[in-house]
Amino acid sequence: MDLSPEHIDQRIKTVRALMQQHQCQALLVPSSDPHLSEYLPEHWQTRQWLSGFTGSMGTLVLTATEAALFTDSRYWVQAMAELHNTCVTLVKIPTGSANLHLEWLSQHLRAGHTVAADAQVLGMAAFQTLSAHLNKHQINLRTDLDIAGDAWPQRPSLPSSPIYEHLAPYVDTERATKLDLVRQVMAEQGASHHLISTLDDVAWLLNLRGSDVSYNPVFLAHVLLDMQQCTLFVGADKITQTLQATLRSEGVHTQDYALCGQALQRLENHAKLLIDPRRTTLGLQNQIPAGVTRTAATNPSTLFKSRKNDKQAQHIRETMRQDGAAMCEFYAWFEHALASKQPLTELDIDHHLSAARARRPGFVGLSFPTIAGFNANGAMPHYRATDSAHARITGDGLLLIDSGGQYLGGTTDITRVWPIGQITRAHQHDYTLVLKGMIALSSTCFPAGTLSPMLDAIARAPLWQHGLDYGHGTGHGVGYFLNVHEGPQSISKAIPEPHMAMQPGMITSIEPGLYRPDQWGIRIENLVLNIPCTSADGQDFLRFETLTLCPIDTRCIDTNLLEPKEIRWLNGYHDLVREKITPLVSGNALAWLEGRTLPL
Amino acid sequence: MDLSPEHIDQRIKTVRALMQQHQCQALLVPSSDPHLSEYLPEHWQTRQWLSGFTGSMGTLVLTATEAALFTDSRYWVQAMAELHNTCVTLVKIPTGSANLHLEWLSQHLRAGHTVAADAQVLGMAAFQTLSAHLNKHQINLRTDLDIAGDAWPQRPSLPSSPIYEHLAPYVDTERATKLDLVRQVMAEQGASHHLISTLDDVAWLLNLRGSDVSYNPVFLAHVLLDMQQCTLFVGADKITQTLQATLRSEGVHTQDYALCGQALQRLENHAKLLIDPRRTTLGLQNQIPAGVTRTAATNPSTLFKSRKNDKQAQHIRETMRQDGAAMCEFYAWFEHALASKQPLTELDIDHHLSAARARRPGFVGLSFPTIAGFNANGAMPHYRATDSAHARITGDGLLLIDSGGQYLGGTTDITRVWPIGQITRAHQHDYTLVLKGMIALSSTCFPAGTLSPMLDAIARAPLWQHGLDYGHGTGHGVGYFLNVHEGPQSISKAIPEPHMAMQPGMITSIEPGLYRPDQWGIRIENLVLNIPCTSADGQDFLRFETLTLCPIDTRCIDTNLLEPKEIRWLNGYHDLVREKITPLVSGNALAWLEGRTLPL
Repeated sequence: MDLSPEHIDQRIKTVRALMQQHQCQALLVPSSDPHLSEYLPEHWQTRQWLSGFTGSMGTLVLTATEAALFTDSRYWVQAMAELHNTCVTLVKIPTGSANLHLEWLSQHLRAGHTVAADAQVLGMAAFQTLSAHLNKHQINLRTDLDIAGDAWPQRPSLPSSPIYEHLAPYVDTERATKLDLVRQVMAEQGASHHLISTLDDVAWLLNLRGSDVSYNPVFLAHVLLDMQQCTLFVGADKITQTLQATLRSEGVHTQDYALCGQALQRLENHAKLLIDPRRTTLGLQNQIPAGVTRTAATNPSTLFKSRKNDKQAQHIRETMRQDGAAMCEFYAWFEHALASKQPLTELDIDHHLSAARARRPGFVGLSFPTIAGFNANGAMPHYRATDSAHARITGDGLLLIDSGGQYLGGTTDITRVWPIGQITRAHQHDYTLVLKGMIALSSTCFPAGTLSPMLDAIARAPLWQHGLDYGHGTGHGVGYFLNVHEGPQSISKAIPEPHMAMQPGMITSIEPGLYRPDQWGIRIENLVLNIPCTSADGQDFLRFETLTLCPIDTRCIDTNLLEPKEIRWLNGYHDLVREKITPLVSGNALAWLEGRTLPL
Repeated sequence: MDLSPEHIDQRIKTVRALMQQHQCQALLVPSSDPHLSEYLPEHWQTRQWLSGFTGSMGTLVLTATEAALFTDSRYWVQAMAELHNTCVTLVKIPTGSANLHLEWLSQHLRAGHTVAADAQVLGMAAFQTLSAHLNKHQINLRTDLDIAGDAWPQRPSLPSSPIYEHLAPYVDTERATKLDLVRQVMAEQGASHHLISTLDDVAWLLNLRGSDVSYNPVFLAHVLLDMQQCTLFVGADKITQTLQATLRSEGVHTQDYALCGQALQRLENHAKLLIDPRRTTLGLQNQIPAGVTRTAATNPSTLFKSRKNDKQAQHIRETMRQDGAAMCEFYAWFEHALASKQPLTELDIDHHLSAARARRPGFVGLSFPTIAGFNANGAMPHYRATDSAHARITGDGLLLIDSGGQYLGGTTDITRVWPIGQITRAHQHDYTLVLKGMIALSSTCFPAGTLSPMLDAIARAPLWQHGLDYGHGTGHGVGYFLNVHEGPQSISKAIPEPHMAMQPGMITSIEPGLYRPDQWGIRIENLVLNIPCTSADGQDFLRFETLTLCPIDTRCIDTNLLEPKEIRWLNGYHDLVREKITPLVSGNALAWLEGRTLPL
């Protein structure tokens, strides 16, 4: 995809002509697909094709004279670079203002104007917010047009990667059991039917995986189920006859991907459809006959999927040992290369770290693009070095590496910051405050039902104390050989959706950070497993078991800022890392591991 | 009011007969009045009259066979005692389940049944929640009956205490200025009219005070204002001719209290009424003609009132010195009396402490009933000793005293826990964890806009760490010679209403606690003033200035549990207390102050 400024400006010109033809004064292009995915197949990367911005989250709004890209602080530096020399302006979304583009629309349009947004990729909940806002300002909304798609010549076709089974020993719950679980919730909600559009829900439910998008082992599909039948709508060429027969024998029938809408149209009037407005598009909902009763609720599979059972937890612990061993091998090589003055770039880091992971059993692929950001590049939370733009690792400063892998036995996501050359007191000060936040939340207990913003505050408090904060959430749910970002839980300032409180078995990241634009960025991230613990008086409490196993650099610490209990936590963590990883490494990597886990 | 069990059961019998006459299967009696007040004039204490429960928060629900009183953990022990031997059952509301009585209603009634609730005392927001819930279960709601009131012979009449002006130097903002401020917000919201029913809002707006209810210096009244006129609906006999003339000269006209509804009925169809659904009753809203446009928003006065200006802050600081001096005089007397083996009860504490406050300049009255709870009584967060039931202060344990005063220059609210005789490691452990929570939140900085649950978590985290928690919020707003509980801000787990984030000038309590039923209770409470501070990179941050000035007992501390920075905070606080109070006390009180503020 050529994203040079002249191409972008030409595309926007073409799209504006189409907007005028359709008498639309504005066009909204979200970063989305018919499954409301985070990582999009190329076919659905319309926002990227039209704006040139490659980040995974961002919304483009066009009018006849303005082109505005809305994205949050993680992407500001990247967006400014990528939009440079185009006609697209960056609009920075402050924390907690997810609907800023709505305000922008009503400020730039007048009553009677029309906004176009494609129903195929518009979430139902997003549509409701959008249409309520436009209504208030007497602005019309058209959702039956895909203006940007129509203007896209040689649009990439839909992906057609083969689908495969996620098998024992990694999977211990059969399809039939999972279908039963979901049907029990349907019965409780009085529903006769249920539509699932989110790709990780479909993959979890049917113990299937694919590779239609980068980094997430999922495949394009919808599932429609009732109390007897389960229909998987999926590209016919992607699934072998043998697998189709296996599925059929377990009550799962396949139909072509394109037929899901028609199946919805054929629902009978007495049907009661359980449907998740945050996880289904307007386009699909438009297919449902008016006589069908809709019950809005979080997909049952979303909650089941988030709660890993004991066997999954065991596989994940083993996966974390392997992933930690890969990290140790990489860092041992890296420090040696650095000491021997080999020329190193951010890209070399990606290559060597990915190779170290690839040597580990069960490895399937990366779970997201490696972020290796040296100094100022580390200040961009979602920075990605490219062939044309990357830094050399030379001189002094901090190197932030955020990376992760997809393994058959789990999904990993880890961030570490490493000192290069001489670092300063200012580096240490920032690093230690972030570490304090990570330790505080990692070691907290809390009552069951505690809301996400309350946990978020515990990680931020040590930074707040110094007038500092970070613009992203503290933690996201993580799948089991599935999406590295999954719901329903998160640890953030956002007002929680139902079920957002932690439940035992959920895996979540803890990743406070601190970003000094143009100077350096710090983020320290572990994955944690939520486990129950009972309080003295029998109330249900929860705590976190840290899953990620990799040394946290101690040279970056200002020990004067650490309380004794924080030092105890860190020494205990390093003892555990050494114990668990030692059997998996040898030679330089083992020596490195031992050196980097010495107690403070 | 005779609340003996036989009276209660007889009243409920009478009310049930009336319910049957009206064909209502359930009756909902909230703790409320036409102003949605916390402290109610006797006339509106229907819930207390009918259930026997005297706590300030609680809802009674009657059916033909069941009588259920819903209240939160602060009142469980008290409610169990007061409901003993009556036909009323306590239903404990767990934290965060404020609408449990709705679930109860739908479980105990069938489709087609009818619930009665009096519109006169039903908040508009509460009505919407109630009616939506009942609707879902096809249960009817009648709001035109006051069944309990009709069954109440010799119901007390409305109070008629005189109204007086809150004057300079304590008040520095004139009525005209305040009216202008409110009208500016009305204009911004496109409103032509605004109704104010909450008594502290009325009192603040017009610089008037009264004594219609206990502890809150307010008077029964409504205000209806447009861009030119302001009408105060108030009992005609409560306001002197002179004061009426003064008000009239400033554009505030008085009409009889009972005429507010008629004034609303006369609003013209083009009127646009700004009205706060959380701060107005259904009864009054029912008077508004259908053609009037209603804009729902928090009363502008609620937000203005919560933000104290610099001059008010100066008066409050001086008031806190006086209140602290009263506390010191009391505690000096108390410890002397205790040492000299005088027989002492919880009631003596109330008498002596109230008398010490009464000797201080500017004192008007108490800001709430003194809570002096020894050992197990301290485990009831809203315990009140009575003539018939109170403890002697003898033996060993912890004494919790929560008290406060109304002064012309501010409202105070302070809780301290004092050791009596020999205390144990278990006492010290609990006390120190609570103190850690108070210090953590008192010394925190946080970004402007931080949500209330996030601050709440900071106070709870040290308790959570030990599997402990408390069932009440961490902090409430405090008025300026007004209600000791005021909005819009609070520090609690509740999902915030708009404007609930802290703003500079707000005064809030910080009062974590820990309650061991039948053993002891601990709560440590200071009031804090929200003040701005700017972060290194220019982001708006806020912090708290501690206003309350009184030693925090150090004998109850397990110093092993305190971090060095916590000890520094406490020593710094005690230095401040000693410096500020010393000029106001002498003799025993001064010696006591010096002894109790020695550094750890």
